[in-house]
Amino acid sequence: MTTAASPRELAHPTRDEIRLEGVLHALSDPVRLRVVRELATAESELSCSYFDLPVTKSTSTHHFRVLRESGVIRQVYRGTAKMNGVRRDDLDELFPGLLDSVLTAAAGEAARHGAG
Amino acid sequence: MTTAASPRELAHPTRDEIRLEGVLHALSDPVRLRVVRELATAESELSCSYFDLPVTKSTSTHHFRVLRESGVIRQVYRGTAKMNGVRRDDLDELFPGLLDSVLTAAAGEAARHGAG
Repeated sequence: MTTAASPRELAHPTRDEIRLEGVLHALSDPVRLRVVRELATAESELSCSYFDLPVTKSTSTHHFRVLRESGVIRQVYRGTAKMNGVRRDDLDELFPGLLDSVLTAAAGEAARHGAG
Repeated sequence: MTTAASPRELAHPTRDEIRLEGVLHALSDPVRLRVVRELATAESELSCSYFDLPVTKSTSTHHFRVLRESGVIRQVYRGTAKMNGVRRDDLDELFPGLLDSVLTAAAGEAARHGAG
């Protein structure tokens, strides 16, 4: 298991360090928004390799890092896989209703324009 | 009055052209978020010069343009003043609850951290 001292443990902002502007920026990219939508509807953590994103591996890694560093997702190593989950508790506590309204808006936009 | 043929009429996306990602990006900057918060609580349009922003004139103009081109605000010339208002009807129709949850989140963040 990963411990706090492990170099494989990834840096995350504490709940108190999460900022609205950073969250909105993280969600303002279509690829990142798609990742968050899939994570939000998944019943468990999803590995990075689960996602079939239309970007290179390094760009994908960048997008996951932006999501993690803004506090939108939590990433942990499980064996060789990097697993991802939305920090719903933290986001709902800090910004009530925001994540749900963004997810609803993204679903509506996908229905209107076929994106996502 | 400005007409459609006037060169002083500023370009705006139609409601159908407004995209969630663009709106979230526009709101992800602290200066722009502050402008939107003030416009949302104002009872009428506010001129650009009303805002005492901690940025240069050209940066301020850029921020207002990002807000306009993303569909968050409507800008119209009235004489020599550029007047601004939030496109609440369009945003609420496209993305129900989103603007309010962002405004609530911004107020909460300002209360916690003194920003805005």
